[in-house]
Amino acid sequence: MSSSTRPNLRELRERLAEVVDLAQAAELLSWDQETMMPPRGALYRATQLAALSGIIHERLTHPRVGELLAELEEPSQRANLPVIDQAMVRVSRRDYDRATKLPPALVRELALATTEGVEIWRQARAANDWASFAPALERIFHLKRQEARAIGYSGEPYDALLDEFEPGMTVAQLVPLFGDLRAATIDLLGRIERAPRQLDRRVLEQSWDTAKQLAFSEDVLRQMGFDFEAGRQDLSTHPFTTSFGPTDVRITTRADQNDLPVALYASIHEGGHALYDQGLPAALGRNILGSGASLGIHESQSRLWENFLGRGRPFWEFALPKLAAYFPEQTRGVTPEAMTAAVNRVGRSLVRVEADEVTYNLHIILRFELERLLLRGELPVADLPVTWNETMREYLGVVPPTNSLGVLQDTHWASGLIGYFPTYSLGNLYAAQLWHALQRDYPDLDARLARGEFSVVLDWLRSRIHSVGRSLLPNQILERATGEPPNPTYLVTYLNAKYRALYGV
Amino acid sequence: MSSSTRPNLRELRERLAEVVDLAQAAELLSWDQETMMPPRGALYRATQLAALSGIIHERLTHPRVGELLAELEEPSQRANLPVIDQAMVRVSRRDYDRATKLPPALVRELALATTEGVEIWRQARAANDWASFAPALERIFHLKRQEARAIGYSGEPYDALLDEFEPGMTVAQLVPLFGDLRAATIDLLGRIERAPRQLDRRVLEQSWDTAKQLAFSEDVLRQMGFDFEAGRQDLSTHPFTTSFGPTDVRITTRADQNDLPVALYASIHEGGHALYDQGLPAALGRNILGSGASLGIHESQSRLWENFLGRGRPFWEFALPKLAAYFPEQTRGVTPEAMTAAVNRVGRSLVRVEADEVTYNLHIILRFELERLLLRGELPVADLPVTWNETMREYLGVVPPTNSLGVLQDTHWASGLIGYFPTYSLGNLYAAQLWHALQRDYPDLDARLARGEFSVVLDWLRSRIHSVGRSLLPNQILERATGEPPNPTYLVTYLNAKYRALYGV
Repeated sequence: MSSSTRPNLRELRERLAEVVDLAQAAELLSWDQETMMPPRGALYRATQLAALSGIIHERLTHPRVGELLAELEEPSQRANLPVIDQAMVRVSRRDYDRATKLPPALVRELALATTEGVEIWRQARAANDWASFAPALERIFHLKRQEARAIGYSGEPYDALLDEFEPGMTVAQLVPLFGDLRAATIDLLGRIERAPRQLDRRVLEQSWDTAKQLAFSEDVLRQMGFDFEAGRQDLSTHPFTTSFGPTDVRITTRADQNDLPVALYASIHEGGHALYDQGLPAALGRNILGSGASLGIHESQSRLWENFLGRGRPFWEFALPKLAAYFPEQTRGVTPEAMTAAVNRVGRSLVRVEADEVTYNLHIILRFELERLLLRGELPVADLPVTWNETMREYLGVVPPTNSLGVLQDTHWASGLIGYFPTYSLGNLYAAQLWHALQRDYPDLDARLARGEFSVVLDWLRSRIHSVGRSLLPNQILERATGEPPNPTYLVTYLNAKYRALYGV
Repeated sequence: MSSSTRPNLRELRERLAEVVDLAQAAELLSWDQETMMPPRGALYRATQLAALSGIIHERLTHPRVGELLAELEEPSQRANLPVIDQAMVRVSRRDYDRATKLPPALVRELALATTEGVEIWRQARAANDWASFAPALERIFHLKRQEARAIGYSGEPYDALLDEFEPGMTVAQLVPLFGDLRAATIDLLGRIERAPRQLDRRVLEQSWDTAKQLAFSEDVLRQMGFDFEAGRQDLSTHPFTTSFGPTDVRITTRADQNDLPVALYASIHEGGHALYDQGLPAALGRNILGSGASLGIHESQSRLWENFLGRGRPFWEFALPKLAAYFPEQTRGVTPEAMTAAVNRVGRSLVRVEADEVTYNLHIILRFELERLLLRGELPVADLPVTWNETMREYLGVVPPTNSLGVLQDTHWASGLIGYFPTYSLGNLYAAQLWHALQRDYPDLDARLARGEFSVVLDWLRSRIHSVGRSLLPNQILERATGEPPNPTYLVTYLNAKYRALYGV
């Protein structure tokens, strides 16, 4: 019997295909909620999503899935499986275990605590009222400790949570990666601040018709290789990407009439995510392997397009004439060099989502360090605002004047997302390492990009990252693409080279 | 124990609430497919919808639902249920029986036959090739006969199919309703044709900017009471209405630059459906009773707004100045009377979806009579085109030059929708009866409508139709609203009065 007709393999594949179908249906409900749903529609959308989530969980944790996995994991059976099916068994086991290990009572308590948590956080942030949020946060960390114990870990509890978003990643790996990056960034930030030359972004702050901005962003997306036959771009308050299989990947952006980069870089960033999703292999359609490998790998794609390509001078050599066709007045006399300088200005900022490419990672490292201490119980929740502010002063040289601009700025912890923040900086680290490998493969990369030959980048990412789907772990994917595991050197070198040149330091 | 805390009642309600949630999720996937989905998204949308349909069927036919229904139907229990819960039990029993009586093999065969049937029909219509479609249609009618047998009926097999769309309606009721309507319509059509005065619709065939048409249609929808906080309007090839609970009801329309009524009356028609869905009582949210009572009752709402209100002279007295604000050139010198005449021109036509208010019912009655004969086996599929054309000559005085413009024009039979067509004309009959009752309650109705006081109509429909949901049968709803069961007199009288006045005969 050939392995493809092995009944237990086929049954597992079909059961998981249904899980994928239902998960994509749920994704559509969420996408619609952010883009199309009329305001009052929220009333039933929550229960519709809850019904779907319940069924997805029920199907994924069905005892028959456990039986099939146990059978297929027997050495005699496993050895005869094609590599891709071995990967499917491994990934299914991981998802099955994560889903079955959590006691239903804990799942319910977490759902309640985070739903309430987000609502309390929203009000606390609006009122700059840390005290009202602290008990909710205490409860969430208490429950997340239980979650970590239920899932299990070999290093420390944080590993169990981190693994949800970045499979295989551990604190033991993160600490040196982030340590090097933190030190180098603080050093670079000091040099930039002392630089005699500062960058001017006033060219960006003219009046830019938003409809034209969107048309321009679509041109850029097309140039990147985004397939509008298999996707679309809409507006939403917070840009995001969602996928219902590689043939339907949707991004959103937002536009500011008086600030050009808002829409452009949101579109390029989400476009980077979307190219990954559109590039997942057709053969993995409806397969549990047919999605991104991790949040970090996903973020590496968005960051590579947004920062390494989109904020580079070659990009502006290509894109400025296209922009000028829409905005002849605003771009008169503007050079690619001036645009590149304007979109790369560095500054000490309080708020993560407004941070530039250099300081962004300091915001992330701060959150990682604090959430790790909170989870270990080594930092009492009550002390969080003081520690937050002290760390901000140490890393970024600024102190939030209010908790709303400090410890209350992000929704992640209120949503129960602990172990999520590091994937943002992992994305930057991975992107730098990939970009370095790409430059090595294409010594004339800059010249090609200046001609708009972005397909060089896409083809390279397709073969090395997108085509793998979820069949390898993030570290394996990086090693396969670049020849080595995550290494902070590339990001540090890239940031230093780019910003010392831009600032002349 | 109060009935609302009765555990079996609560469990049934919760199980059915999940079915409603999932059905609304599936509706969203279908809406998105028609309005937003990029072309290549179709690849996985079908499997996503199939997964949801499978689960909805599984949940609805769960043995536990059968047990709960049997318990609650015991006389001692039923007697103590509130009226609304008695209705829930009755409607659930109906849906449960219809879903469980069909053997899974027949369900699969029907799904296959109709999926293939639609594809074959599409090609046959394009190629005007009846012979290639005939075997597929033969197979579908063969399977629908099995379906009717499995479901059961007291009159004839057609009743079992009709009941799916119009609960409680039977051939025995339809035949006299349609007989009277047919005779009166053929008579009226003859008078109109012989009328010395013919109506001029050239005013409608100017150039009308479609964006302005859509803005105007939204103004009209607002005036009707459509709540844009709980709904939206988009474009699609075939206009339709879809609902995800009363707080999110979406309509689509289409626009023709050179034909004003296309968008306007599609919006009013779908708006009529949508007002029904938005008006379903909040207390029936996530309840199996919280939807329209039948296709016929639903169509009565859309037709009442489209034809009885929207094609009436009072409407144009109100709406023409609003239209003129968007289109001052096109409406210069045009009177409400001229607009009313233009949108009511009657003509013998080959194609149902292009038919006017008078001839439309003849198209429907023809289909009802033929599909009934086909199901009884009294008309061989092979003879269908000839019989179609002969009946067209007899009723409408025209003969299709091709089968594509005749027997192949509709998708319904290929989709397995037998017993569906009558609900279109039932909608017209019900609408006339409701309109008559409304006029009786408001002797000054025309004057109010001419002032744009459409809320009179909406409030009346809300209290008499919308608030009932699915808790009564269509005939009961009509009787409750108008004092009598369906009676063809009202439509016949209305058509005669309106069109004899318009045509001066």
